[in-house]
Amino acid sequence: MDLAQAKVALDTLWVVVAACLVFFMNAGFATLETGLCQSKNAVNILAKNFIVFAVASIAFWAVGFGLMFGNGTPFVGLTGWFLGGVDNSPATGDAYQGAFTSLNWTGVPLMAKFFFQLVFAGTAATIVSGAVAERIKFLSFIVFSFILVAVIYPVGGHWAWGGGWLSVAGFKDFAGSTVVHSIGGWAALAGVMILGPRLGKYGKDGRINAIPAHNMALATIGTFILWLGWFGFNPGSTMAADVNAISLVALNTNMAAAAGCLAATATAWILLGKPDFSMILNGTLAGLVAVTAPCAFITVPASVTIGAIAGVLVVFAVLMFDKLKLDDPVGALSVHLVNGVWGTLATGLFAIDGGLFYGKGAALFITQIKGVLAIGAFTFLASAVAWYALKFTIGIRVSPEEEMEGLDVGEHGMQAYVGISSSSSTLGAPSASTT
Amino acid sequence: MDLAQAKVALDTLWVVVAACLVFFMNAGFATLETGLCQSKNAVNILAKNFIVFAVASIAFWAVGFGLMFGNGTPFVGLTGWFLGGVDNSPATGDAYQGAFTSLNWTGVPLMAKFFFQLVFAGTAATIVSGAVAERIKFLSFIVFSFILVAVIYPVGGHWAWGGGWLSVAGFKDFAGSTVVHSIGGWAALAGVMILGPRLGKYGKDGRINAIPAHNMALATIGTFILWLGWFGFNPGSTMAADVNAISLVALNTNMAAAAGCLAATATAWILLGKPDFSMILNGTLAGLVAVTAPCAFITVPASVTIGAIAGVLVVFAVLMFDKLKLDDPVGALSVHLVNGVWGTLATGLFAIDGGLFYGKGAALFITQIKGVLAIGAFTFLASAVAWYALKFTIGIRVSPEEEMEGLDVGEHGMQAYVGISSSSSTLGAPSASTT
Amino acid sequence: MDLAQAKVALDTLWVVVAACLVFFMNAGFATLETGLCQSKNAVNILAKNFIVFAVASIAFWAVGFGLMFGNGTPFVGLTGWFLGGVDNSPATGDAYQGAFTSLNWTGVPLMAKFFFQLVFAGTAATIVSGAVAERIKFLSFIVFSFILVAVIYPVGGHWAWGGGWLSVAGFKDFAGSTVVHSIGGWAALAGVMILGPRLGKYGKDGRINAIPAHNMALATIGTFILWLGWFGFNPGSTMAADVNAISLVALNTNMAAAAGCLAATATAWILLGKPDFSMILNGTLAGLVAVTAPCAFITVPASVTIGAIAGVLVVFAVLMFDKLKLDDPVGALSVHLVNGVWGTLATGLFAIDGGLFYGKGAALFITQIKGVLAIGAFTFLASAVAWYALKFTIGIRVSPEEEMEGLDVGEHGMQAYVGISSSSSTLGAPSASTT
Repeated sequence: MDLAQAKVALDTLWVVVAACLVFFMNAGFATLETGLCQSKNAVNILAKNFIVFAVASIAFWAVGFGLMFGNGTPFVGLTGWFLGGVDNSPATGDAYQGAFTSLNWTGVPLMAKFFFQLVFAGTAATIVSGAVAERIKFLSFIVFSFILVAVIYPVGGHWAWGGGWLSVAGFKDFAGSTVVHSIGGWAALAGVMILGPRLGKYGKDGRINAIPAHNMALATIGTFILWLGWFGFNPGSTMAADVNAISLVALNTNMAAAAGCLAATATAWILLGKPDFSMILNGTLAGLVAVTAPCAFITVPASVTIGAIAGVLVVFAVLMFDKLKLDDPVGALSVHLVNGVWGTLATGLFAIDGGLFYGKGAALFITQIKGVLAIGAFTFLASAVAWYALKFTIGIRVSPEEEMEGLDVGEHGMQAYVGISSSSSTLGAPSASTT
Repeated sequence: MDLAQAKVALDTLWVVVAACLVFFMNAGFATLETGLCQSKNAVNILAKNFIVFAVASIAFWAVGFGLMFGNGTPFVGLTGWFLGGVDNSPATGDAYQGAFTSLNWTGVPLMAKFFFQLVFAGTAATIVSGAVAERIKFLSFIVFSFILVAVIYPVGGHWAWGGGWLSVAGFKDFAGSTVVHSIGGWAALAGVMILGPRLGKYGKDGRINAIPAHNMALATIGTFILWLGWFGFNPGSTMAADVNAISLVALNTNMAAAAGCLAATATAWILLGKPDFSMILNGTLAGLVAVTAPCAFITVPASVTIGAIAGVLVVFAVLMFDKLKLDDPVGALSVHLVNGVWGTLATGLFAIDGGLFYGKGAALFITQIKGVLAIGAFTFLASAVAWYALKFTIGIRVSPEEEMEGLDVGEHGMQAYVGISSSSSTLGAPSASTT
Repeated sequence: MDLAQAKVALDTLWVVVAACLVFFMNAGFATLETGLCQSKNAVNILAKNFIVFAVASIAFWAVGFGLMFGNGTPFVGLTGWFLGGVDNSPATGDAYQGAFTSLNWTGVPLMAKFFFQLVFAGTAATIVSGAVAERIKFLSFIVFSFILVAVIYPVGGHWAWGGGWLSVAGFKDFAGSTVVHSIGGWAALAGVMILGPRLGKYGKDGRINAIPAHNMALATIGTFILWLGWFGFNPGSTMAADVNAISLVALNTNMAAAAGCLAATATAWILLGKPDFSMILNGTLAGLVAVTAPCAFITVPASVTIGAIAGVLVVFAVLMFDKLKLDDPVGALSVHLVNGVWGTLATGLFAIDGGLFYGKGAALFITQIKGVLAIGAFTFLASAVAWYALKFTIGIRVSPEEEMEGLDVGEHGMQAYVGISSSSSTLGAPSASTT
């Protein structure tokens, strides 16, 4: 082994370990979203969030990765389907020769590059799942996810990360507040609008009916897993064992999460009278989403500030979407869309290099706005086309009868929980403090 | 630090991190198996899957590791009890002097070698747990697990991985489709046959009664953890920071899982009319088990193919075992035994170097068949002897009364769930979308 | 990259990955503690264990880290608030110039040092949560946690790890049996005494009423996550890619856990008549806590011995605390306080270098006793002051009505589980073994 090989080994180990952490976020989304929905739809949500990564794996391998990172035009990549074509990774910079020039800045084997980018692509699709939960047909969700990961996400991603026109324009999105989270959020928004709200959510008298979460333990497990996974998501986006960047990004990620958590707690306490636990969880995620774009470009105090603002935003956003009768059972729009946008804009404000607040003028901030609008408009429109195409072919919404009964029986012929209720709590079951 | 030390450090970090991922699979098996069984036996299954790794740790340290990797005969290792004896790890190749020559290809400290191999040994034992669940005595399971990890698994493992006769013959099993999964599966099969089915599972009129899974959220968490753990299991089996192998193996592992998931979903949908969620989960695991042997020797498209076939196989296998009245509550035989065999044979077909489909003749394929048969016959017979010995001494099956009431109260004096049922869902509990 | 940079990269990757594992222990404590308590308080315990890491992040960043590792007196650090001040990390030894000289032995960036130490600080606070569960006010817990992480933990930590008087005296606590676990335990003990027991726990006739755990699946997940996290906690405390130390510590950690598990199982089986599952779980944690101080200084057989003794101790300790009417719903005192003390003393007995059992005299053992007493006395007194201050200002205990109804509704206005009970288990839900 020589020093160059040692560097490739260090970089690759880091990328693979980080990818594993991000992969595990699938478990986080599955449990969080399921916990926040109703018991009668739990199997369906679990199944959607489970199969979606399998769908994403095939879609991104076949088409998405080439479209996103392949050599091509400013708008789309055109090489590298099924990971095919020439590639001399881990060569970097000008020494790299192959189908994926836009990734020539990271010196790891091609399959490690793909694995890491795949787990990101999968994340975008899982975000949609929660927003459209409790009423979407299983098959339609699968097909939409395929389209999202094969085409929509990669095109938006190509603009920002694949050497496309936004990256040329100087758009900054370190780990994907826009590329991953707001793309997922815009696709979800289109779905929510076209699907309509759950039956009974909005009364004819204008009343908004709370539909309570069914399992907060599950939701908590999910949020912890997501917080953990973000230590792969953000620091892993170095795609190299760059120790200063990794350390800074890891800490910024954590501090924004903490600030988002506390700010959402306080906001909910003041606004709703109690520290609503789902707000505590979503506030943390809001901080994480918001810091995803700027995490490598800002100081620790800036992370705390960005996270705290995210925590406030998410509470108001949840209330706002309900006012707008956009029914999002898990708060995915408030977390991923609103704070994906906020984090991207915050980069233009707080970036040490180029940020408005550092006296570097508004150029970066304006570029950030452009990126938010361009990717938002494209994703929303493309998603709407896909949702409508599904609506008028295989249909996207289950029958009202199935929705009332629950999708678990209707879509899967099973229940999530069987025989759990213990009629008697008087059994002398030993606790930790056995007598 | 010099370059040689840097290589040892890279290799060791990778091995330790991968071992941690594999260790976590214990949590995956525990939650998957418990979720797929009945509520009244949940504590018992959790306790079995928890204590089994403690048992395995002691058994493999005292006896198993020496029997498996110690210097000895083609059939059994005979040095290194309690990790004793000379050892100059991390020296490799001819420079290595010590009790575990068969592991001289990996340049990490002895304790790291042991730790990694221990988590593999533990896996074999956990596989048995699910198949014999809901009727086995707690103590008998503990004793059988000790025997399996101390003796049976190491002997089979010695043949293939410990420098024994199968490894000399050219048998290929990269990460253990045979050594870990089918050994666990054969041991489980013997247990299932000798224990007999759960009461009421097979009616006198030939009817097969479905006994529904009690907690699909738990089962989903388990499967996600297992998928994650497999990124330690397969890529970690390099036992070195070999970046190309790690990247290829990680990706092959994932693609086989994805293909298994989708193929099982489609097969179940066609065969059973609905996308049964437990089939989706087990299809994923089937793909993972099948790709475990060949993952380092094949291309990505081959992984997709092998995984897809595994996903179909597992659905038919579940139906077949029920037809044969072999009662396996969690599908462990279908996942680990059937697909452990399939993956081992697939290696003889798809291996770039030696595979039948690559025009390299049938030599490797025939060796693979030999390995499957030899290890299968040994494991099944040795396990049967152990099960019978237990049956005629301490007994292996709980009383019918205890089985009806549930093993949680009978074996542990407690219930898994107390007071969870909320009589009222009309409480104005705030959801994520609070009004 | 040169060799020195490669070393920094290796060390940093290890520290960051280990920190992620330790961070995940928050999820472990949350699920373990919640599972062992009652359903009606589940949201509250989850919320406490979730928000506590956010609180710890801010407290340790602002004050705690400077107090613990900053340059100062033998009793307290006085530099480095908000990570400020000079720092030329990753320089080590005499080459290091900066505010945190006591950490000059680890060659990683400052932010990596902080991130790793932060997840340790968070652990101490989560330990308290379980002991005071089911009766403490949410806000009081938040404020106490802030005080603990900002002031109490750092002062005790400074003495042992921050260059303070105990470290000068030769006190050995590799990964924190005393610094983390017993500090958490002493703070919890003060809280338990000042709060008083849960209503109905101790009858007027002297009867001890068992209050059964509500969700053993949750408790099991938690314990598995903690076991996993300990592979970051102990081996990560090398804070360097020191392969021999990492391998030894990882293995010692595991073997003590296994021995603690089996010893507690046997003890509970003999004493209580059945292998109580919460004892199995707590026995494992007891072994882990006990081996935390000595893990880098002892042999594998010594780890097994220390862990086995811990497993016995924890069972008797649980019974003892109940006799003393110290109501600790999850056994945190028995696990973390009793075995934190045991592990620290065991270091004086079993350490190869300095241990009494190795014929090295009683000097180290006596120093260990001094450390246990000094840190115990300080933590208990400081915590008692903090608890009393809270008691006489915002109050620390919820009303009896709220306690009876459950803290979930009282503190958070929601329930943990809604609509989970399936009235019918006769639905033909497909199991893994579908007919």
